[in-house]
Amino acid sequence: MPDRNDPFLPPDDEGRALARRLLAEARHAALAYADPAAGTPMISRIAFGLGCDGTPVTLISTLSAHDAGLRAQPLASVMVGEPGAKGDPLTHPRLMVQVRAEPLDRAAPDLSAIRERWLADHPKSRLYIDFADFGFFRLTPIAALLNGGFGRAMKLAPADLRP
Amino acid sequence: MPDRNDPFLPPDDEGRALARRLLAEARHAALAYADPAAGTPMISRIAFGLGCDGTPVTLISTLSAHDAGLRAQPLASVMVGEPGAKGDPLTHPRLMVQVRAEPLDRAAPDLSAIRERWLADHPKSRLYIDFADFGFFRLTPIAALLNGGFGRAMKLAPADLRP
Repeated sequence: MPDRNDPFLPPDDEGRALARRLLAEARHAALAYADPAAGTPMISRIAFGLGCDGTPVTLISTLSAHDAGLRAQPLASVMVGEPGAKGDPLTHPRLMVQVRAEPLDRAAPDLSAIRERWLADHPKSRLYIDFADFGFFRLTPIAALLNGGFGRAMKLAPADLRP
Repeated sequence: MPDRNDPFLPPDDEGRALARRLLAEARHAALAYADPAAGTPMISRIAFGLGCDGTPVTLISTLSAHDAGLRAQPLASVMVGEPGAKGDPLTHPRLMVQVRAEPLDRAAPDLSAIRERWLADHPKSRLYIDFADFGFFRLTPIAALLNGGFGRAMKLAPADLRP
């Protein structure tokens, strides 16, 4: 039984595999970002995928509030892992990742590979991926917390998340 | 067709009704809060419900990182509205609410009514609701953004959210 005063389990291979699976299967995420003016925590749903090296990426519009937020303050957090329809949603595993967000220039060398993988994983995004206001951000992990339900939390490092 | 340079529709009754439905049906939410030490945006899944006057509430453990975060910086944001299993998740409606979080003292006069409604809406929480480390926070709305899909965003005021 976990010590309720130190609720983190030591990282193990099962936890690392679960974290990588949550990242690989996620097609959207919740994003916590700072309001560009006030600095207060804001939230948004974003599309979510992995680049070819396994680093998380998102495709967002410059018209969105979180685009301005991430450009002003690149430190942000994402959460992946959907609760199922049954049972207590807090017992379903989810992964929270602190990230540094970086807009990808249209001339970035790996952009076409990221775009191809994104289209394979998000086929409906073909409708808007080439709109002038849409662009990719890389979300480089800084730290992560896996929560597999009450008493099953585990701190993970960026290396633990790599495929 | 919405003006892509001013993506907000004027508030209307359909939007207000959708926002109230998303709040009433939500049993969990994504929470953006500030890290108590660094101030950077953090994210967590929380249990979510409404108090008897329709104000959002959550039940959290003092062992959670977001408990310390909300006590240090009460300004936070929550997102409700689950994407379905099919279609582009970004076309599914969701509501983002900026809130002021306030822990409810065990002696608060409305606590027993909040507890009864919470147990009716979250029957599995009976397992832990009376643990010494669990307590309610009231999440009083400050501002809200309803997003019903691309080009269907609407800013709403706290009064628009009340049942």
